[in-house]
Amino acid sequence: MPKNSHRALVTGASGYIGSHVIRHLHEAGWQVGVLARPQAAAALSANPFVHHTFACSGPTSDVIRAVEEMKPDCVFHLASMVLTEHTPAQIPDLIQANILFGTQILEAMRLHHINALVNAGTSWQHFSGAGFNPVNLYASTKQAFDDILRYYTEVSGFRAITLKLFDSYGPEDKRRKVLRLLIEAIQTGKKLEMSPGAQVLDLVHVDDISRAFLHAGHLVMNQQEPGLADYGVSGSQHRTLKEVASVVEGAAGRSIPLTWGARPYREREVMVPWDGPSLPGWEPRISLAEGVRAIIDEEFASVENRRS
Amino acid sequence: MPKNSHRALVTGASGYIGSHVIRHLHEAGWQVGVLARPQAAAALSANPFVHHTFACSGPTSDVIRAVEEMKPDCVFHLASMVLTEHTPAQIPDLIQANILFGTQILEAMRLHHINALVNAGTSWQHFSGAGFNPVNLYASTKQAFDDILRYYTEVSGFRAITLKLFDSYGPEDKRRKVLRLLIEAIQTGKKLEMSPGAQVLDLVHVDDISRAFLHAGHLVMNQQEPGLADYGVSGSQHRTLKEVASVVEGAAGRSIPLTWGARPYREREVMVPWDGPSLPGWEPRISLAEGVRAIIDEEFASVENRRS
Repeated sequence: MPKNSHRALVTGASGYIGSHVIRHLHEAGWQVGVLARPQAAAALSANPFVHHTFACSGPTSDVIRAVEEMKPDCVFHLASMVLTEHTPAQIPDLIQANILFGTQILEAMRLHHINALVNAGTSWQHFSGAGFNPVNLYASTKQAFDDILRYYTEVSGFRAITLKLFDSYGPEDKRRKVLRLLIEAIQTGKKLEMSPGAQVLDLVHVDDISRAFLHAGHLVMNQQEPGLADYGVSGSQHRTLKEVASVVEGAAGRSIPLTWGARPYREREVMVPWDGPSLPGWEPRISLAEGVRAIIDEEFASVENRRS
Repeated sequence: MPKNSHRALVTGASGYIGSHVIRHLHEAGWQVGVLARPQAAAALSANPFVHHTFACSGPTSDVIRAVEEMKPDCVFHLASMVLTEHTPAQIPDLIQANILFGTQILEAMRLHHINALVNAGTSWQHFSGAGFNPVNLYASTKQAFDDILRYYTEVSGFRAITLKLFDSYGPEDKRRKVLRLLIEAIQTGKKLEMSPGAQVLDLVHVDDISRAFLHAGHLVMNQQEPGLADYGVSGSQHRTLKEVASVVEGAAGRSIPLTWGARPYREREVMVPWDGPSLPGWEPRISLAEGVRAIIDEEFASVENRRS
């Protein structure tokens, strides 16, 4: 395993993308520290890719102590509460997770002169391709955090990149996203009611996303001047939902029981993904066909294994 | 007293500007409801300009109930925690006050189809005249809230105006602002250590600011199309701090014991105020000389009264 002296502090390591980012960091020889709520921190302490675990129960002092002890060369801030649609009761948690927690991290970085940050944003900050027009409340909290990051970049000389993420997918993805639903429909044979399916998706493999985070980490660590940049992490393959379903059918060698048009589009459905500037020096390596085929092979192999 | 059928829901009514806005609303015949934390709400219920009081102890449901019961024609959102410089421990309260509470109000408005909003922002969102460059963390939380307001404007058809406020002043202003310090120095004779004093101030009388809020309320209520606009509420008289001190000396007929240059400028001191677009149809009526003279006359008269 290659060794280097880089130290990462990662938030959101319990999430699907975060769990892959810490594996990539570990494999690249980084010392990996994670900052999480007490329960998640306890679970992460058993993770082989995690070398230091810090628990935060809420106060800013917990976050300051973690940054002080970890002394990271770069902070990877992936923690967020993702909601495509919200309820009134979720608002306090949404703002705590997506604005307050991140601000506490920036404050801790400022106090301990840690300058390099890679932050996870969302392409949903750009509804209809606008400079800023949030698809949902979740996306507006992400933009709100960017404004606070702007302040810290100005006063503390941060070198920061916000990576605007699109749809992610990959192996062992238990999130209730469309690829999971399509695979389950094959497995169960239960008919799935779909929207008309003309919305274009930009699906990016979680290993490609993880590589983008590491690459961005090196960019901000080597950056000479303070500054905040935003880049998209696009899979470069735009496919309609209907086309994605066809890829899955091809990979599985089975048709999926789908009823197109049985459900309306979501309010503010993103029909065409944002097409913003891409992270320089990075490009996706895993095509949708390749990625989906690997997932299908594994899923169906494991079903075969369980049967035998 | 003129009567009309307009109903206002006001936050921040306990603050200096808010307390004047509710008086102006009352005098213009509005039904005035206030939404405040339990302790502040209890105090406000005795205020003669307040007709309905709603307490919010934190949950979104409290805010939803207030909007539902008040059925305002316009919401005046003035509540905020103002900090020129922050400590780490203040961050949770700052985000609660300046982002979470406002988001709960927008959500309650969305649920009850209330569309008209006047929101208090700050000229500090525009350090060095930039489109957005926050002077301090406080200003960045204000911009963050504007992002969330942008989302609600898009999805709920809000008609909203954010008024960017400059320095405010007026009678019976107990806030530890520079005008108060100058007056106290005259009263106590104690020498005051000042910065070099070349920073330009845009001081606006609280009655002019209150009129701007009412005017903006009428604009958003009469607006045909949804939309979010930002306007400055400038006093139109730019004076250096040294010149402001001279105005106070002239009004008092006494010199102030000041040592200019004894203290450095603040980090990120605003040397020249933002010069953005002003609220259309409104202009300040009270010159700095007139406003300061009235305050000085009242302050010194009340000292004379106490002495006699």
